[in-house]
Amino acid sequence: MKVAIAGYGNLGRGVEAAVTNAPDMELVGIFTRRDPKSVRVATDTPVLAWDDMPTYADKVDVVVLCGGSATDLPVQTPELAARFCVVDSFDTHANIPTHFANVDAAARAAGTIGVISCGWDPGLFSLARLYASAALPQGADYTFWGRGVSQGHSDAIRRIPGVADARQYTVPVPEAVEAARSGSNPELTTRQKHTRECFVVAEEGADLAAIEQAIVTMPNYFSDYDTTVTFISQEELDANHAGLPHGGTVIRSGRTGLNNEFGDTIEFSLNLDSNPYFTGSVLASVARAAYRMHERGEVGARTMFDIPPALLSPLSAEELRAHLM
Amino acid sequence: MKVAIAGYGNLGRGVEAAVTNAPDMELVGIFTRRDPKSVRVATDTPVLAWDDMPTYADKVDVVVLCGGSATDLPVQTPELAARFCVVDSFDTHANIPTHFANVDAAARAAGTIGVISCGWDPGLFSLARLYASAALPQGADYTFWGRGVSQGHSDAIRRIPGVADARQYTVPVPEAVEAARSGSNPELTTRQKHTRECFVVAEEGADLAAIEQAIVTMPNYFSDYDTTVTFISQEELDANHAGLPHGGTVIRSGRTGLNNEFGDTIEFSLNLDSNPYFTGSVLASVARAAYRMHERGEVGARTMFDIPPALLSPLSAEELRAHLM
Repeated sequence: MKVAIAGYGNLGRGVEAAVTNAPDMELVGIFTRRDPKSVRVATDTPVLAWDDMPTYADKVDVVVLCGGSATDLPVQTPELAARFCVVDSFDTHANIPTHFANVDAAARAAGTIGVISCGWDPGLFSLARLYASAALPQGADYTFWGRGVSQGHSDAIRRIPGVADARQYTVPVPEAVEAARSGSNPELTTRQKHTRECFVVAEEGADLAAIEQAIVTMPNYFSDYDTTVTFISQEELDANHAGLPHGGTVIRSGRTGLNNEFGDTIEFSLNLDSNPYFTGSVLASVARAAYRMHERGEVGARTMFDIPPALLSPLSAEELRAHLM
Repeated sequence: MKVAIAGYGNLGRGVEAAVTNAPDMELVGIFTRRDPKSVRVATDTPVLAWDDMPTYADKVDVVVLCGGSATDLPVQTPELAARFCVVDSFDTHANIPTHFANVDAAARAAGTIGVISCGWDPGLFSLARLYASAALPQGADYTFWGRGVSQGHSDAIRRIPGVADARQYTVPVPEAVEAARSGSNPELTTRQKHTRECFVVAEEGADLAAIEQAIVTMPNYFSDYDTTVTFISQEELDANHAGLPHGGTVIRSGRTGLNNEFGDTIEFSLNLDSNPYFTGSVLASVARAAYRMHERGEVGARTMFDIPPALLSPLSAEELRAHLM
């Protein structure tokens, strides 16, 4: 199957690697809104102008969108679904229903498949929540993120006057994870579940106390958390905080038995060296499923909740039953 | 939807509890091959004679089979699939392809759906292996079972002359679990992965040394494992080993990046107070999916690999996208 990438940042690089390494996929091009000549990619894949996309309608089976959820994907995914089967990683949870409806309308009109909100959260973590709640209808879910780099929170710090660079780690509170596992179904506040660690490079002469105050009081991002701020040099940040590790854990604790006699725990966790390369790898597997659903004659929007899991794998249904069941 | 149970042992009780507690399901009957008058069930569900099943064809949407994999299910699942949509927990991994083919033929001829090999292994663990290998195609899988009671191994001990009762625990070796998690992709032998702990009640005057020898040298069951045998009284067994706890962990350790630069670990684990009640709860969710697939006009055999996950949940697709995604 022929795959293209639309947008080339960290996630685009992740999809590029995963598709290149998949024996059943061919990466036919990387579309960019920048001047294609200015974009250097990691493979010898052609870099193509965004506006030339229409001429590739017959040469591409699935386009994997790698833009951001704030402003890119809400516009791009419906737009591209009018021409191609598409996969995106739209992750603004509250807006998923609206985005789904927009992609669904475009995909149905065009006879394409559009799979939205793929990756690990939303994505594999959503699936863990769904399977676990179906298996244990009486129970409670807990999702912990980290320890890992939040790019959104790092960006928010970088926008503060006097900040030259920053890296923010989201860290689950071990006691909260243990409480979720315990079966006592505790109510956990935002502050009880995660802490935030900020490593900040200040500009020369900047007011460090003012920067710290601006971070820890920032609404939505930091004010509801116990946040620590550590000022470091650019060299130290580059040496020790260059990666984008992430991960987390979904825990469902629930009860079975006619009178809820038995307590069970289901846990799904990820420990990732590179968030964008892992997310890119998940998106590549979903591109495979999108292609197969379209080959079956399906159209419209989908999430990973709608995909028969076998369609994600390069193995045949027979091989899966024989070897993975 | 109207659900019936076929076979009433530990697993049948588990399905009975789960279906009874599901607001969208009605448990219409429990079929038994014994004299129905001799079977006391935990709810006020009618106990029905196995041979009366044909008269229930229009009164039951899905039958959940709760017999054993050795001799019951290979015969019963195809037989019942000729009349009802069915769900089973067939767990002889090596025979799944044959069982699938037999159920598929019966279900296609009858226009029914037959979902085989549901539960947690095969079942949720199979799904964990599939999703993890799709997300991390470069990598290795490890499945650890326990700490938990293996009913098959307990039965095998009980068949030894001089044994009055027994309970066998399968126990993962912590060092092997850590090695699997480490990303070093170790080759682990059967002996390195699990130990087996046997609690045995001997008949009066029995030769304890002979029993222990018979256990630890038993091929397939124990000879490939480090096995410990502890003789205890029936009272102690009843007091401390009456439950059927189980669980385990599926670990996939793999690499992403164009040149496999990054190491990731995916882990799925279960910790269950009661194996049969949890398995029964999974089977109930699959009965829901079987009903929905049949309503969509689908026929034939399926495994959990083929089921769009949303179909397992009592929530609508809209609710799932809004709340679990």
